[in-house]
Amino acid sequence: MAGNTFGTLFRLTTFGESHGNAIGGIIDGCPAGIALNISDIQSELDRRRPGQSSLTTPRKEHDTVEWLSGVFEGITTGAPIGFLLRNEDSNSGDYDHLKSAFRPSHADYTYTAKYGHRDHRGGGRSSARETACRVAAGAIARQLLAVEGIDVSAYVERVENTDVSFPPRYFDRSEIDISPTRCPDPIAAKSMAAIIEAARIDGDTVGGTIALVGRGIPVGLGEPVFDKFQAVLAHALWRVPAVKSMEIGSGLHGTTMRGTAHNDPIRANEGGKLYTVTNHSGGVQGGITNGENLIVRLGFKPVSTLMRPQESVSTSSESITLEGKGRHDPCVLPRAVPIVEAMTLLVLADHWLINRVAKLP
Amino acid sequence: MAGNTFGTLFRLTTFGESHGNAIGGIIDGCPAGIALNISDIQSELDRRRPGQSSLTTPRKEHDTVEWLSGVFEGITTGAPIGFLLRNEDSNSGDYDHLKSAFRPSHADYTYTAKYGHRDHRGGGRSSARETACRVAAGAIARQLLAVEGIDVSAYVERVENTDVSFPPRYFDRSEIDISPTRCPDPIAAKSMAAIIEAARIDGDTVGGTIALVGRGIPVGLGEPVFDKFQAVLAHALWRVPAVKSMEIGSGLHGTTMRGTAHNDPIRANEGGKLYTVTNHSGGVQGGITNGENLIVRLGFKPVSTLMRPQESVSTSSESITLEGKGRHDPCVLPRAVPIVEAMTLLVLADHWLINRVAKLP
Amino acid sequence: MAGNTFGTLFRLTTFGESHGNAIGGIIDGCPAGIALNISDIQSELDRRRPGQSSLTTPRKEHDTVEWLSGVFEGITTGAPIGFLLRNEDSNSGDYDHLKSAFRPSHADYTYTAKYGHRDHRGGGRSSARETACRVAAGAIARQLLAVEGIDVSAYVERVENTDVSFPPRYFDRSEIDISPTRCPDPIAAKSMAAIIEAARIDGDTVGGTIALVGRGIPVGLGEPVFDKFQAVLAHALWRVPAVKSMEIGSGLHGTTMRGTAHNDPIRANEGGKLYTVTNHSGGVQGGITNGENLIVRLGFKPVSTLMRPQESVSTSSESITLEGKGRHDPCVLPRAVPIVEAMTLLVLADHWLINRVAKLP
Amino acid sequence: MAGNTFGTLFRLTTFGESHGNAIGGIIDGCPAGIALNISDIQSELDRRRPGQSSLTTPRKEHDTVEWLSGVFEGITTGAPIGFLLRNEDSNSGDYDHLKSAFRPSHADYTYTAKYGHRDHRGGGRSSARETACRVAAGAIARQLLAVEGIDVSAYVERVENTDVSFPPRYFDRSEIDISPTRCPDPIAAKSMAAIIEAARIDGDTVGGTIALVGRGIPVGLGEPVFDKFQAVLAHALWRVPAVKSMEIGSGLHGTTMRGTAHNDPIRANEGGKLYTVTNHSGGVQGGITNGENLIVRLGFKPVSTLMRPQESVSTSSESITLEGKGRHDPCVLPRAVPIVEAMTLLVLADHWLINRVAKLP
Repeated sequence: MAGNTFGTLFRLTTFGESHGNAIGGIIDGCPAGIALNISDIQSELDRRRPGQSSLTTPRKEHDTVEWLSGVFEGITTGAPIGFLLRNEDSNSGDYDHLKSAFRPSHADYTYTAKYGHRDHRGGGRSSARETACRVAAGAIARQLLAVEGIDVSAYVERVENTDVSFPPRYFDRSEIDISPTRCPDPIAAKSMAAIIEAARIDGDTVGGTIALVGRGIPVGLGEPVFDKFQAVLAHALWRVPAVKSMEIGSGLHGTTMRGTAHNDPIRANEGGKLYTVTNHSGGVQGGITNGENLIVRLGFKPVSTLMRPQESVSTSSESITLEGKGRHDPCVLPRAVPIVEAMTLLVLADHWLINRVAKLP
Repeated sequence: MAGNTFGTLFRLTTFGESHGNAIGGIIDGCPAGIALNISDIQSELDRRRPGQSSLTTPRKEHDTVEWLSGVFEGITTGAPIGFLLRNEDSNSGDYDHLKSAFRPSHADYTYTAKYGHRDHRGGGRSSARETACRVAAGAIARQLLAVEGIDVSAYVERVENTDVSFPPRYFDRSEIDISPTRCPDPIAAKSMAAIIEAARIDGDTVGGTIALVGRGIPVGLGEPVFDKFQAVLAHALWRVPAVKSMEIGSGLHGTTMRGTAHNDPIRANEGGKLYTVTNHSGGVQGGITNGENLIVRLGFKPVSTLMRPQESVSTSSESITLEGKGRHDPCVLPRAVPIVEAMTLLVLADHWLINRVAKLP
Repeated sequence: MAGNTFGTLFRLTTFGESHGNAIGGIIDGCPAGIALNISDIQSELDRRRPGQSSLTTPRKEHDTVEWLSGVFEGITTGAPIGFLLRNEDSNSGDYDHLKSAFRPSHADYTYTAKYGHRDHRGGGRSSARETACRVAAGAIARQLLAVEGIDVSAYVERVENTDVSFPPRYFDRSEIDISPTRCPDPIAAKSMAAIIEAARIDGDTVGGTIALVGRGIPVGLGEPVFDKFQAVLAHALWRVPAVKSMEIGSGLHGTTMRGTAHNDPIRANEGGKLYTVTNHSGGVQGGITNGENLIVRLGFKPVSTLMRPQESVSTSSESITLEGKGRHDPCVLPRAVPIVEAMTLLVLADHWLINRVAKLP
Repeated sequence: MAGNTFGTLFRLTTFGESHGNAIGGIIDGCPAGIALNISDIQSELDRRRPGQSSLTTPRKEHDTVEWLSGVFEGITTGAPIGFLLRNEDSNSGDYDHLKSAFRPSHADYTYTAKYGHRDHRGGGRSSARETACRVAAGAIARQLLAVEGIDVSAYVERVENTDVSFPPRYFDRSEIDISPTRCPDPIAAKSMAAIIEAARIDGDTVGGTIALVGRGIPVGLGEPVFDKFQAVLAHALWRVPAVKSMEIGSGLHGTTMRGTAHNDPIRANEGGKLYTVTNHSGGVQGGITNGENLIVRLGFKPVSTLMRPQESVSTSSESITLEGKGRHDPCVLPRAVPIVEAMTLLVLADHWLINRVAKLP
């Protein structure tokens, strides 16, 4: 299994299964000289943690990070930052019935076919538990990017068919976290909570979309042709479990527009600094960030784990009925918000560093 | 400018500007022993070439590939395959007026800001001309994948608001190429051609969507966590110029469904081989291909180059009016079809090779 | 600090400082299906551990590995293998005098200049303690390669000016470990032990050479041009602290020979299998392994940490006298033997996997 | 055949066989803004070219580079630099007798075993002809590094058993090129020329060593642990055909010294700048350059192609006698000098860029 590292200069490698001893990771390439605020990192993990509200899985994990290296006297040394999160509330017994079964729309069958051998407990490596490591790393990227004034935030924009009443815009995370749905529109948030709760009672699940907005991003991030900013970002965001769609700027709607309406007119402000009147481009032109807000929308499918019986097959190809057991989220979106932010921050950190060598100083 | 290479084991590196001497590339990691059919490769390039019909730019390029290495007596040797396409019909003079201007929604401003210096002729490196190299490489990937019985084809599914009447399914390329729109639905194709022609007369441009279907893909391609098949594919497809949205399987529609409806039930056929009754997953589960058809949809914005005057700014931040000059496509979709196929084939070739080392033989 | 990962398909990433909380690593790309023998891995670590004999540093570390992921029911799953070694006997106080001093021929000055900030305790990240992680990973590579019948062993060939009486050849590790010098020639071993002991009493240090021999290596490992087998191996072996020279096959002596004497005649045995009569090539021809034994020699400088006063400068450029403190090896060679083996095994594992895709099956 | 790319930020990919249509390459990641002096690049290629003197092969190649992209109005744009060298004097007929034969100590057998299929003409991809591409790229790296005041030069230090009378030191290339042997010691150069000429008359070949010295290298290049400067340099230098040994600083001799003699005392000059009194470290400490001269020695075996009959085997394992045909160098060292420089320059360019992100600005 390759594919557990990403990034060129700011790199994250992770390990760990849902119900193994621990999960963790190594951040390599974080520049020396950053005074890390460890409690801010922990706050980000708390946003992803299970058991935050009735809308999420009741599995209890403190997700307390043990920092193992790379920081000395509170400051990054340039050495790789190793970290660890112990698995605490891992009732492996909940998964005994899955040892010889393939759950629909999960990784059970594909992993077994690929590797011949599978850690079936809670999805093993395919569990979203691994994303805690990304959130930890993303929180460090956020502190690095603060040096430049870059920040991103994401929120739940739609659950099933209920959405917010405004186009994507930047919200402070405190505004987003007011509702456990992580939707900053109070009216929509209330409806969303009701939808999620109804699905939970049904043993069913729902999906929706998350909007992400980045601001303070300098002109010039991204590399032409194969590492266009949106392409690298797509690689990162499609790593998030349950993603079914991605849009940038005007997105799918933009594909129905005419060029005359879609082009973003460029103007200069009084200081001669360029800006665009509209932002259909979503902050990226020709694969390179243009200084406008980054605008991205991600769609998530309804969670595949249901709390009701489902038809499926056993590992020996026999028809079976799967019981819905374990502790699961009826809707992944509220907890996906910090993950989506983290993936974006990791891409920004990497490309902010890469861009330092684009031209001679 | 980094980012001109992609792939891990089957790797493509390209070079070249729209109006420079030549474009070309190097394919590294193509296994030895493939008897290449050079004329089939050329046919793929002919599908992307400008000047194919009144729906596309009248720029004339033969796009004849000169093969420079890596093939001996018609068979790949395992050595890197170098190739070259000379630029022939490059009227650089068409672009003199752009030397000191930034076109809206192009790479002009972002490249200048990033590199301090820009080849303004026809967009230089940011031109879609570079995609000819990807089509050449993709054609070799197709011949490699034929060994396994894998193939992909794409078609125009929607132009502006006119779309085909069926969900994504596999068509033979001969069926797709009947219409210059590359839409296999004859009635929709006719409407699309009219829409594109009307936009051309207006000096305007239109966008739409392309559907891609892959078949014969074995179970097991993709790597968990950061190189999930859909993530690597997203990286590849978002490299295609003008992409604004991407969906897999049930896509955006799937995000409005309930889990009970969205899950793909697994069954075993008489031989014990597993399959899914529906394919909302689009051929990928847990980041790994599951043997069902790969289903992807890509949205394209209307082309940014208009044949009418537009407001913009000069490189010295002054307001200017840009004239529409040069030779351009009113709609990028028909010519994007082979590019989308090529990017997918390159990902498949790479991951088909990577998957050979997933488990002990 | 980048550069904490190596390998293409079989990849190791490490973290950790000499006197931090822990060191550890992640092995990514180990194929699924290997039944790991954990106690054999621990035995390899015991060979590198400090405190083995009077010839090595008295620092006590159990170097017990905690395995965190990637193995289920004793068998590798294809998921990344995370592991951890706690630092136990880390008397950081021994290093207080180094906080504001630069030790000669160490990383103290270069790290400070590069990063602006340094974990001075025991050399921090530059300490050879990190090599324990490589030995752990190399031990897993050895178990993977055993499937193919590949093995390597190394031994101390020369200490200062005392060397063994035979050219490099394969010894079983049990024969090598008879003497704490790790020299399989009993007479030379005795002299070497005396030399090391004399240096230790002097507060001085000595260097020498290690010979490494690999056997059972199939024809075909290595990639032409930039990843020639010897080039990738050189990258790996020059990562070992204190290396000053490397030779392959006939080595430095071979550079004084004539081509007629140096060429290795090829013959076929009765079964038609080719072999070479001599092995001046050291098992690699044209950058690719040829099936003969791999023969490498590495030279190590005398350890830079002395147990006597030395002149140096402070971090504020003032002349100082450094006291010799802490616990150190008077000769690095015996403990370097398992490290050299591990680095070679990691390269072999990676290239054994890479070679599976050189040609069509 | 992977392994045709190297470098992280400043990357070279090459293609081409000895007797194919052309060789060439792509340099990716060269920063924008460098005014390239094309004739200086060509001069470097002329130093590597065959047919320079009676000491080298009489094959005639102009090695004129065609530059295809990445440079606009004489200045690098940040886009990839594509380039091409046509093969002119390629008498493939000289190699017909090798189609079914394996030359001793060449890549013939290993390539055939690895790939199943081989371009036998002049060694195909394994020919040293490919190194012309590295020299072209190295010449660009030299112009980039001149911005920082970095330069390297190499010379022939020993041929067979005749060597120069001084330890490695920096010579201007004009001093080195006075003699066709590329030895800057006139007396040794004369003897070396006689030795090479005698070998040529015998149809035999000789080896020796090259010394390389770099100056102006700033403190801080290289990355700890796996990308130590000497390790990356070793990877690069062991890519040069015929290398059998490598030493850094005190080298093999240093391994016989005591630590008290080997350590390089650090002092501060009047401005507080640190330097070392001796340079046994060869310019690298703890894997990071320390600002002193880089000192490296490389040993080369005698060329494997002999102009006399040799015993060998056919591709069908039968004993044969190989005739010595074609045009070859009796000693590779004079023409290897620019290649060794180029490989070092490519490493320096890459790590000079990488080091820009080691710490916060």
